[in-house]
Amino acid sequence: MRAAVMFGAGDVQVRQVPDARLVQPTDAVVRVTHAAICGSDLWRYRKMPPSTAGVRIGHEFIGVVEEVGAEVTAVRRGDLVLAPFKWSDGTCEICRDGLPNCCPNGGFWGGELDGGQGEAVRVPQADGTLMPLPMDPDDPRLPAVLALSDVLCTGHHAALAARVRPGATVAVVGDGAVGLCGVLAAARLGAERIVILGRHARRTDLARRFGAVEVVPERGAAAVERVRELTGGHGAHAVLECVGTGEALRDALDMARPGGAVGYVGVPQDGDGVDVRRFYRRNVTLAGGTAPARAHAPELLPDVLSGRLDASAVFDRTVGLDDVPDGYRAMAGREALKVLVRP
Amino acid sequence: MRAAVMFGAGDVQVRQVPDARLVQPTDAVVRVTHAAICGSDLWRYRKMPPSTAGVRIGHEFIGVVEEVGAEVTAVRRGDLVLAPFKWSDGTCEICRDGLPNCCPNGGFWGGELDGGQGEAVRVPQADGTLMPLPMDPDDPRLPAVLALSDVLCTGHHAALAARVRPGATVAVVGDGAVGLCGVLAAARLGAERIVILGRHARRTDLARRFGAVEVVPERGAAAVERVRELTGGHGAHAVLECVGTGEALRDALDMARPGGAVGYVGVPQDGDGVDVRRFYRRNVTLAGGTAPARAHAPELLPDVLSGRLDASAVFDRTVGLDDVPDGYRAMAGREALKVLVRP
Repeated sequence: MRAAVMFGAGDVQVRQVPDARLVQPTDAVVRVTHAAICGSDLWRYRKMPPSTAGVRIGHEFIGVVEEVGAEVTAVRRGDLVLAPFKWSDGTCEICRDGLPNCCPNGGFWGGELDGGQGEAVRVPQADGTLMPLPMDPDDPRLPAVLALSDVLCTGHHAALAARVRPGATVAVVGDGAVGLCGVLAAARLGAERIVILGRHARRTDLARRFGAVEVVPERGAAAVERVRELTGGHGAHAVLECVGTGEALRDALDMARPGGAVGYVGVPQDGDGVDVRRFYRRNVTLAGGTAPARAHAPELLPDVLSGRLDASAVFDRTVGLDDVPDGYRAMAGREALKVLVRP
Repeated sequence: MRAAVMFGAGDVQVRQVPDARLVQPTDAVVRVTHAAICGSDLWRYRKMPPSTAGVRIGHEFIGVVEEVGAEVTAVRRGDLVLAPFKWSDGTCEICRDGLPNCCPNGGFWGGELDGGQGEAVRVPQADGTLMPLPMDPDDPRLPAVLALSDVLCTGHHAALAARVRPGATVAVVGDGAVGLCGVLAAARLGAERIVILGRHARRTDLARRFGAVEVVPERGAAAVERVRELTGGHGAHAVLECVGTGEALRDALDMARPGGAVGYVGVPQDGDGVDVRRFYRRNVTLAGGTAPARAHAPELLPDVLSGRLDASAVFDRTVGLDDVPDGYRAMAGREALKVLVRP
């Protein structure tokens, strides 16, 4: 079969790779119909040291189950399924706690496993990992559903971690796909006033469509000052950190109101530490991390299917498998916000 | 009048100072009956650069109202009152949010103001700051009540921030008075299993009396390992960070279970940053900061008066005002856990 392989910074190629096949009785093989390129793939695309073997990539996908192992009972051949960005057993204590993303028996795609940006994927722990979808593979709502594999659940997780509730003032740091999904999630949770921090007009325009009422292009102290002005002088009740740099996190912490919370979901890119003295006196809570997408997706799916929660506009380009390298170039060059892949 | 003044590291003296008197119509003057020396006073006692003028100290006190300004309505002459470790107006948006400790019109004792370790104190914003007590100045429960001015509310705040709830496994980092109050607060909130991290037998014995069932004397990786073993392998649901060093905070974050929370209340002593990558994947929440003592105290007072929440054993030495310097020496030398002052 064919799949995207990353060989180093700026170097993604579509190659012939071994066919996806069952290895464990808990596996399924899924033929990919929809996949995506993620902002977190871009971090690696910018920094990966050259590798002869390369790494398989892609962690967001929808597909049709082609084959299941003897112990798989929750999905069967022909089912359309969504895979979240981590696989998990769904039965351990941590999964039962609602944190499949922290499952000690789970993991990330790629590495020894297939990636989502390819023709098919061997899915470990298929019963715990895959979410059956009540629709056909050509349903036009599937791009909106695909967002549940990562960015929409991650934006929702940021909003929950930042304790967005009806009446809250909310600042969203970052106008990438996760930040935009954070705006959408915050609006759904009843936020009264959403401020987006970003400087790319196409993205901040989309943020307005998703529910933001103010755009702050500044960074650092100027951004903090501006958010305070826009949120009644004290800062935002809830701040969603959707970038992943120390600078963005510090800004987020500084613009939270006393007693407020920062939901951090940007994958941390630097070891740039956070000095607790920065928020100790203001009682700011820092919560978040990787999103439990497999837990959030079933909860959000009805609203996605009804169109109430439609993040499909974050996909502003669609490519076939052969054009995945172009998709990376477009996202890295900020010509595309997020690329949908139809293998 | 006479009051304790700190002139530098290791140098506390009892001096003649100007009498406490009304300055603003919202002030009260309180004659101190009970005060305390705090672990946070000790940080300054160890590090303060020499000062000719010196600084007034003490932020935990109970006393009798001697005089009130024209605009004070909530307390009157003769009332027995508790002062929390910060003063606050009680009426602003932030106070109404339940965070009097973050009141923009409030502040800490000392500096331009009197400290609690003296004969009397001018109390700004008396209506917002002072909590009337339903008892006489010679009531034997007053040491237990005095703990509400800081350490008990701070331990409770740590427990709430760490989301202690019935059935939770809890680790308390630090066996000082705040850590011990954290144990007491966690037990009151229904913790199933409380582990105290400390290495001073007298203190950890008291922790056991307060509800801890395990004592871990180790620090660093060994402590984290031990707490994991004692909490079912995954770590504690709730960790109370009651020390204030970067090392203690890192240990606390490391010993939290995926999805768990660290309540940080130790006053941060170093700029030792926290790398978010340490807990991003485990979805650990970091919450806490200074405690809203003025908000918690009325809520906790009934349990203190009934004896259900009795932190008085943290006071293991009582001194008169003249012996405050000895009290500091005893606490700095770890001969005393916490010193009660009866001016």
